[in-house]
Amino acid sequence: MNLLYSLDLLGTAAFAASGALAGIRRDMDLFGVLMLGMVTATGGGTLRDLLLGDTPPFIFKDETYFYLSIFVSLAVFLFHHRVGLLQLPLLYLDALGLGTFVVIGTGKALDFHMGFIGSVMMGVMTATAGGMMRDILSSQVPLVLQKEVYASACLAGGALLYLLHLTPLPAPWALIISALAVIVLRVCAIHFNWSLPKAPRNSGHN
Amino acid sequence: MNLLYSLDLLGTAAFAASGALAGIRRDMDLFGVLMLGMVTATGGGTLRDLLLGDTPPFIFKDETYFYLSIFVSLAVFLFHHRVGLLQLPLLYLDALGLGTFVVIGTGKALDFHMGFIGSVMMGVMTATAGGMMRDILSSQVPLVLQKEVYASACLAGGALLYLLHLTPLPAPWALIISALAVIVLRVCAIHFNWSLPKAPRNSGHN
Amino acid sequence: MNLLYSLDLLGTAAFAASGALAGIRRDMDLFGVLMLGMVTATGGGTLRDLLLGDTPPFIFKDETYFYLSIFVSLAVFLFHHRVGLLQLPLLYLDALGLGTFVVIGTGKALDFHMGFIGSVMMGVMTATAGGMMRDILSSQVPLVLQKEVYASACLAGGALLYLLHLTPLPAPWALIISALAVIVLRVCAIHFNWSLPKAPRNSGHN
Repeated sequence: MNLLYSLDLLGTAAFAASGALAGIRRDMDLFGVLMLGMVTATGGGTLRDLLLGDTPPFIFKDETYFYLSIFVSLAVFLFHHRVGLLQLPLLYLDALGLGTFVVIGTGKALDFHMGFIGSVMMGVMTATAGGMMRDILSSQVPLVLQKEVYASACLAGGALLYLLHLTPLPAPWALIISALAVIVLRVCAIHFNWSLPKAPRNSGHN
Repeated sequence: MNLLYSLDLLGTAAFAASGALAGIRRDMDLFGVLMLGMVTATGGGTLRDLLLGDTPPFIFKDETYFYLSIFVSLAVFLFHHRVGLLQLPLLYLDALGLGTFVVIGTGKALDFHMGFIGSVMMGVMTATAGGMMRDILSSQVPLVLQKEVYASACLAGGALLYLLHLTPLPAPWALIISALAVIVLRVCAIHFNWSLPKAPRNSGHN
Repeated sequence: MNLLYSLDLLGTAAFAASGALAGIRRDMDLFGVLMLGMVTATGGGTLRDLLLGDTPPFIFKDETYFYLSIFVSLAVFLFHHRVGLLQLPLLYLDALGLGTFVVIGTGKALDFHMGFIGSVMMGVMTATAGGMMRDILSSQVPLVLQKEVYASACLAGGALLYLLHLTPLPAPWALIISALAVIVLRVCAIHFNWSLPKAPRNSGHN
């Protein structure tokens, strides 16, 4: 499916850019910035493939993802003071990548006959584990665990794809609808500043 | 072995509660709290299965662990101001989970014909790696590496099970004795405030 | 190849020492220090084997690595105030380990018919992922991502081995030349204080 592959590459580029930017912010050297870009872009899919037992992971089979991540990270390294201008487009590209990664992850889990939670987890993990690794390597609490509707949009999309897959709807339609659900949810979350509830704090609790 | 399965679920619930509490303390949103509960409860066994090459890991084969972790984390999220009352029972449940996880991990490694250190490591990892992931995701130095007798109780139990397995003692007895050893050690450590030695510090060393 | 195995053990010892020292600096107890020594020494090769799908990883097949790491970490724990005297020798041993680990990692990837980036990554990962795990477990931004020429020396060595492997040069020569390249680069980096460029910072960028 060529559309999915193109979207996958676009998402990879957006994720690599976010990783490279995080590296620059933490004052890493060129190697660190490239590494962080690469891990952010490919870490989620790698973890998914490890858990599915599909080794070596996809990135080692099609090195396009590696070359693209390195190229984007290098570009961010060289021109990062102009990346500020790209902040909004990057946010949208990130949403696009999120939707694509979720349906690729959940779709692959369905091919491996995973159950409901397993399939949804694989989608969420494909989309968010790279970002978590980025934050862990920068010694921060993963944004994904604190931020506005991000991982939960992935969750919704993964669950939707699992359910659609039980219906007679053709697979490509199910993929597109689920990816769109994630993207729309995420874009709305950005625009309307949605966030998930936090546990009520009572004084005296540390 | 139904007793072991029940203890396993009890331990899972206790670990999920400790993960969810850590998430609330770090001001995570609902998704983060559920995620941290799930990772704490299932991360150790998942890592063990990855290392043994037994993929997909157990939690993807029996989704009960997932549902239980989510349920417990959600309950902690909703009623966390009352969890304070449960602090002591939770500590005992945690000790119970520790003992159970160690013998499950070391037992599985023995089935895979691992050597002495490998078998002990698998038990320790099953019991403690989930908690380490919890601490890494909360951007803290893992408690397990600093705290009073915790991982070392697991170490003792795993080594005991390995040795008993060389004797003609029936397997269920070996499992029960080793699990009890961990639990008793851990409970004593809590009550008598035992701790392992730290390296002597000399001034001038940073 | 007996020389490679001996160098591998030397490198393992040097890495275990650096892990154990990090544990002592973070005020960990005996278990934590042993654990950190072991993870630093064996974590890179374990991750490589997981990604190659060669499970269980090498350390579980030849427990020598485990025993050596434990022995070295214990020695560092007991005599760490005298380790200061060993700082320079340790730095050289570390460079030796680096070169050895890179060629072992890239060499194994070539046996598994990985592509260019995959093979280089496997070498870099074998040499640096253990140190990254050490830093993550001590809740620090991995040194490798910030420091002077370290991972980039591994990168150069891995790429060199990949290229030499395309020539008719006998495999042992290719291994030795590539390992020496890493070691010489690393030793020069220490002596001449080489470092990779960082992205230029402009004020106003956070």
